[in-house]
Parts: sequence; structure tokens; C-alpha cells
Amino acid sequence: MAPKPEPTVMEKIVSLCKRRGFVFQSSEIYGGLNSCWDYGPLGVELKRNVKDAWWRAVVQERDDVVGLDAAILMHPKVWEASGHLANFTDPLVDCKQCKLRHRADHMPGFDATKGLPPGTKCPNCGGELTEIRKFNLMFKTFMGAVEDSAATVYLRPETAQGIFVNFVNVQQATRKKLPFGIAQIGKAFRNEITPGNFTFRTREFEQMEIEYFVEPGTDEEWHRRWKADRMQWYLDLGMRKDRLQFREHGKDELAHYAKGCADIEYQFPFGWSELEGIANRTDFDLKQHTQYSGVQLTLFDEATKTHTVPYVIEPSAGADRSTLAFLVDAYDEEKDGDETRVLLRFHPRLAPIKVAVLPLVKKEGMPEKAMTIAKALRAAGITTGYDEGSAIGRRYRRFDEIGTPFAVTIDGDTLKDDTVTLRLRDTMEQTRVPAATIVDTIRERMNRMPR
Amino acid sequence: MAPKPEPTVMEKIVSLCKRRGFVFQSSEIYGGLNSCWDYGPLGVELKRNVKDAWWRAVVQERDDVVGLDAAILMHPKVWEASGHLANFTDPLVDCKQCKLRHRADHMPGFDATKGLPPGTKCPNCGGELTEIRKFNLMFKTFMGAVEDSAATVYLRPETAQGIFVNFVNVQQATRKKLPFGIAQIGKAFRNEITPGNFTFRTREFEQMEIEYFVEPGTDEEWHRRWKADRMQWYLDLGMRKDRLQFREHGKDELAHYAKGCADIEYQFPFGWSELEGIANRTDFDLKQHTQYSGVQLTLFDEATKTHTVPYVIEPSAGADRSTLAFLVDAYDEEKDGDETRVLLRFHPRLAPIKVAVLPLVKKEGMPEKAMTIAKALRAAGITTGYDEGSAIGRRYRRFDEIGTPFAVTIDGDTLKDDTVTLRLRDTMEQTRVPAATIVDTIRERMNRMPR
Repeated sequence: MAPKPEPTVMEKIVSLCKRRGFVFQSSEIYGGLNSCWDYGPLGVELKRNVKDAWWRAVVQERDDVVGLDAAILMHPKVWEASGHLANFTDPLVDCKQCKLRHRADHMPGFDATKGLPPGTKCPNCGGELTEIRKFNLMFKTFMGAVEDSAATVYLRPETAQGIFVNFVNVQQATRKKLPFGIAQIGKAFRNEITPGNFTFRTREFEQMEIEYFVEPGTDEEWHRRWKADRMQWYLDLGMRKDRLQFREHGKDELAHYAKGCADIEYQFPFGWSELEGIANRTDFDLKQHTQYSGVQLTLFDEATKTHTVPYVIEPSAGADRSTLAFLVDAYDEEKDGDETRVLLRFHPRLAPIKVAVLPLVKKEGMPEKAMTIAKALRAAGITTGYDEGSAIGRRYRRFDEIGTPFAVTIDGDTLKDDTVTLRLRDTMEQTRVPAATIVDTIRERMNRMPR
Repeated sequence: MAPKPEPTVMEKIVSLCKRRGFVFQSSEIYGGLNSCWDYGPLGVELKRNVKDAWWRAVVQERDDVVGLDAAILMHPKVWEASGHLANFTDPLVDCKQCKLRHRADHMPGFDATKGLPPGTKCPNCGGELTEIRKFNLMFKTFMGAVEDSAATVYLRPETAQGIFVNFVNVQQATRKKLPFGIAQIGKAFRNEITPGNFTFRTREFEQMEIEYFVEPGTDEEWHRRWKADRMQWYLDLGMRKDRLQFREHGKDELAHYAKGCADIEYQFPFGWSELEGIANRTDFDLKQHTQYSGVQLTLFDEATKTHTVPYVIEPSAGADRSTLAFLVDAYDEEKDGDETRVLLRFHPRLAPIKVAVLPLVKKEGMPEKAMTIAKALRAAGITTGYDEGSAIGRRYRRFDEIGTPFAVTIDGDTLKDDTVTLRLRDTMEQTRVPAATIVDTIRERMNRMPR
């Protein structure tokens, strides 16, 4: 029998994610639901930390950006105005013989205006193909009591439109002047034909979007600034510089209204892939909604008595993609004697559990002392794990594997001199520190990291 | 002409919410979408704070509860097993004459088994009514490329089932033993016929649910404990005790599988209404999913070599309802000379903006000094507003009205002796404190509050 091939890095990460409770297949006991994933106890903390770091950086630490949380269900006119109802489609063909369905735009020779070259056959069976049909990627549902008489509404395919339609309400409530931005985190849904790569491309996903409104003419400068700011965010949270790059969109890729767009890409094991797009959307969206709603989405300038339609810079990031990238980036294996130490080198701000509190043995009052320390850490808002289960080396490894940056061990000496061992995940360095100052010590060490 | 009636408290709150940016009508520029609401810049911070306080209390400060974030789209079998597909219905009748639709169970004389009394007429026009039809409250949509061949899936009507189907995955990843709980915050959707009361009853809403798994026989004790714990949470965040009550469900209200249920109710201006239900669901859910999936949702006891199906205590709270209750509870009006001071007496942990930084005048270096202080507060993770716009008294009132507990004013003396005025929202008391210690002063005063 041939030897079983070594698992790939991605396979190891997916396996770790299930085993330790980062990510489970959704509805797994029923065979799963294609491309839907659930975040387990560690995954939910990791993703919360990613989203909180983003919110803090783009909203709470800035004076020029405010938050918003718009509903997933929106008035159907929104999608007429935005162009999604007419244009948010994939071109599909069916094979008349084997019945398989294909994305025409993924087949050789496809041209957006001319379609497929004459004579193109099914890549699976060589059978004849149907004409290309446009398939809208929005999920639709029905609001109201009876399907036929009810309003057809859509699950939003992006959070951005919730920001545009609230532009006047937000500006009037906050009295902000240009330039200012509105940021939002929320779920969006796309009925993708070919989801895949674990949590990278899914039908249900979470976005972190900013619409930053600027004076026309200053848009290119602000586009440059946001590109730099957003790249810096990933670096500040410890992502490796050599696995990040910008990719400028070519003219043929740009939407007709966009002046420019750059993606921030991460080098996943499955290739360079987009984490975030930063686009100059001009005044397209506000003008469209003004036209479709009849409500002026403009800013009035008291000095010149003129109405301005701002230009918009849109940094649009994926929360699930960033979370996956931070996970992949943190994954590391180290030879340690005959064994391999698997660890997640998360930035402390992203680590799901910051501190492990471990009694050396399960007796002599050590568990009680350990639980007192764990309680003090938790009361200080520091997520803390407690484990009294097995040999201390094994427990260290378990916490290394889930990316816990600090371990505090309570031993015989603790009961004599009230000191504990502080062990660092990355270097395995151990130092002795007073138990009474452990909260401050951890806080100080977390703040010592960049950001 | 008759004088315009005084606005009700609820009308005042709804108006304040729009004007200051707590809550906007969703898709308002298109005439709104019935019962959908968007959280504005202050509302999103308030709701984040409510959710964070819940997460911290029930997950991060406890050793016996872990988090989860399951997808909104789940396998359709889940809703067969849970009973939602067959039973999550409202009984509706239509009037054959005026075409209005009514909830039969809201009409006089309705009986769940017998229906409406013979001869019941339309309450609107007296016309003849149709037979009662069962209307399922789940929103349905279609996943996959073509509507007719695609899988019909549902937007989850509750987050709870995401916890039950992940029971084994979570238990194995965390190695938790009974009793332990799984907590989740997330959106759910119900196609209600009669939504209303602002954000209280909406078709799209967010839940904060815990499923707490216990040994059968200990369930009643744990039910009591959770009722007490959850009530204490609202009190700890400053909600008025005399506006909170328990309401025990009568035998006729209970689901057939439930052993007991108590609601925590808040006295809204529109009456006592449910914030949270705390139910003893027995082993119903795990048994149902075991039966439908064929996967044993049990815990194996090494000592007795037996499989236990745990009982479940479910504290299920509404994030939007709690947020609304905290808002209503905080609303206050005070006579101040000839004027009325409107303020929101939020607990500092819930206040959307913790500190207002205000230069007394817009010159003599005061704005620059104020911005330095604002920056230091923000860097410390304290949400901070900055306003240099109008007379100082007017600015204080603006921040009182959005519930900002602290104001820091920079004046002429600040530039001489580096002290600032610290003003408290609730008492309007002013004290002089060193500018250099303002971060610590604010932190210390926030911690002085309960929890």
C-alpha cells in the first residue's frame, strides 16, 4: 500500500480548527450545509478580537469616522438603485447531456460581450451546452403573510448600501463635515456557485466596510492614505509583511463608475487571495440613490451656498477572510527534540485566550490558589483558561496549539513565597513573578507589543 | 384649533433616537421597510456595549460557559427536528370583503383546538372570514443556482438550534463536563404579522442565548440559579428594580416539553413586556436531534459507563429589546430653572460615549490641548467625543442628552496650571483635576460604579 501522503498545511489547519474548537462545519450532524461554517468557542473569540481591533482602529480611535449597524433586510428599491438587481449576476451554462452547471466566465475563451467561442463543449463530458443565462447572486425571500402577495426582499449582498441610504441621517445626527466616514460590520449573503477554500469564500459571510466621504478633487489623495492605513492595520496586528501585497486592478476589471481599486492580498496556502478591496467609487452611489429615492444625498455648504455630492473611498474587508488569514499566518511548527511543537503565534490582542492558569498538581491547595488567580484575571477583563488535567508539559503544548501567549503556573513555591511561574508561548522562556502583581504584569506585557 | 397634545415618553424617545443618531428607520429614503430599524452612530455603540457586557458576564467571567457563533443558514432538517417546520405558525384569517388579514388567536373567543366561535365576523368591516390557515413564521430562501432545483433553506428563527446541533463538537473540543453552557449572540428572523413598538418586536432581531446543560435531577436548582443570575445582570447595569419583574408561565402557556419558564419583564411605556425567557427545556432538543440525525447527542460517563442526555436550562434574551429597555430606563427629564434638562442616565459601561472633551473657547491653544487629551483617552480605549462648537452650557446639554457620563473642559487655567474641569452628567457637579491624570481619573470613576 502506498504511504499516506503528508497532510498539507491547509489540511492541518482545518483539522486543528475542528479538534480544538475554532471552526466546525455548519449543521455537521445533518451532513453539513455546503460552504457554511460555525465558529466554535475559540473561533468566536478570535473573530470577535479581529472585529474589535478593526472597530477600535477605524471608529473609536478616530474623530472622523462613526459607526452604523443597518438591517440585513432592506427595501428592494435599494438594489435597483445600486445596480445589483440588474448586474450582480454570474453567467451560467448547463450541459444538456450530463446536466452539470458551469460558470461560463471560468471557461476558456469567454468574453463578457461575445460570450463563449462557438463550438465550446462541456468540459466534463464534451456534451452540448445551453445558452448563457444570467444568474443573480442575491438570495431572495418574502416578507409578509402570503408568498404570492408578499414583498420580495433580498438578503443584502454587501453592507455598503446600508451606509449610502443612511448618509443624510448620519450626517445630520453627527453634524460631521467632509471628510468623514461611516463604518459598519455585518453579515452579507451571496449565492455563489463555487464557494470554497474553507472559510475563505462562503455564501454567508461578514464584512467590515468603511465609506469615507471626501470633497471631489481630494479623492485620489484619500485613496492613497486609506490604502496605507489599512495595510498598516494588518501589520500592526502582527501579520507577516512578506505574505501581504497590493494588487492594483486593471482598467478592464474596474466597475464603470470606479476611478481605481487596489486589493490587499494575503499569500494563503492556496495562493494570493483578496482580504480587502480599497476602491474609489466616485459619487456614483450617492447619485444613484438620489435619483431613485428623490431624496438629495448631498452636503450643503453654508459659505458657498452650494450642494456637494461627495466622492467615496471604500475600504471593504472580509471579517472571515481576515480571521482565516490571521489563523494561517499564526500557524507554526517547531522541532523540539524528537517532537514537533505546533503553535499559533497570535498577536496577544487577537489570541482567543490570553492566559492559561495551571496548578502544577491537583492537590496541596494549588487548584484553589490557581482559581483565585484565574478569577482576578477574568475580573480584569483578560480572557483566561484554567486546566488542572494532565502533565504540565502537555498542558503547555495544548495552550501553545491554541495560541495562548502567557501561562501562569502555581507550584509548591507559590504556597511558600506567593510567586508563580510566567511562561511565554513564543520563546518558552520562564520567569518567576509575584502572584499579587500578575494582572499588572500581563497587562504590561500585552501593551509592550506593538499597538 | 385644538392644542397639539404633549408627546408621550415613547414618542420623545423615538424622536431623540432619530435626531441624535441612535436608531433610524431602515431604508428611510425609500419610505422604510416595515419594522426594520438601523442603529446609528450612538445606537451601534450602545448595543455593542450591551452585547459585550452580556458576553463578558456569561462567557468570559465564567469557567463553565463557552461561546459559539453559528451560521444563520442551517440545514433544513434542523427545523424538522426542532418542530419549527410543523409548528412555528400563526393562525390567520382573511376577510373576504375588505381583504384585511387578522391573527385568529388575537380575536375574541379563539381556542387553539376549536378555532374561532361560529359566526365570527371581520372586526374591521363585519364581513365574512375565510377558514383559519397556519402561516409559518420562518423566512425561506433558495440556495443553489436555480430556484426550482435549489434547496429551500430558512433564515433561522432562533439561535438556539445552532447550539444544539454543535453540542458534541463543542463538548469534544473543550472537554467540558456537566454542568456547562454554550452561549451565542446572533441575528434571527421571524416573519411576524404584527411587528411593532419601535425596536421591541421586529422581523429581524438579535438574540443572546445560553443553553446550559445539566445532570437530569439538578435542572430545577439550575433553573432557579439562572433566573437569579440573569435578573442580577440587568440590575448590575443600573436598570431600575421597580421596573423589572418575573412572570412565571402558566401550564397552558408552556411548550409540551418544557418543565417551566419564567420571563424577565420590563415596564415599558407600552406596558410590561418580555426582555428574556428562562426555560427548563428538559432533554427535548438533544433527543429530537439525535432521532433526526442518527448522531448520539449524549455525554459518556467513564465511571458508570452510561450515556447521559443532559437537561437544558435556556436563558434567552433579546439584544434589541435589552438595548431599548436600557435606553427607556435611562431617559430622564429634570427642571433646571425655566428649562428642562433631558438626559440619559446610562451606566458608564453602557454609555456610547464615555467622555466629552470640550475646549471652553475655540482659541488660545485650547482646541489643541483638548485634542491631545481626547487622543490620550481614545488610545486608552475610552470612547471620547470632541466638540468645540457652541456655548459650553449648550454643549454640556448635548452630551447629557446622549448619556455621556463625564465631560472634561479645557479653559484658560488649563494653559497655566495644567488642570481641567471634570463635570459629572448625573449631578452636574464640577471638580478640578490635573490634566495629566485624566485617563486614570476616568478609569477609576468608571470602576467605582457597580460592576
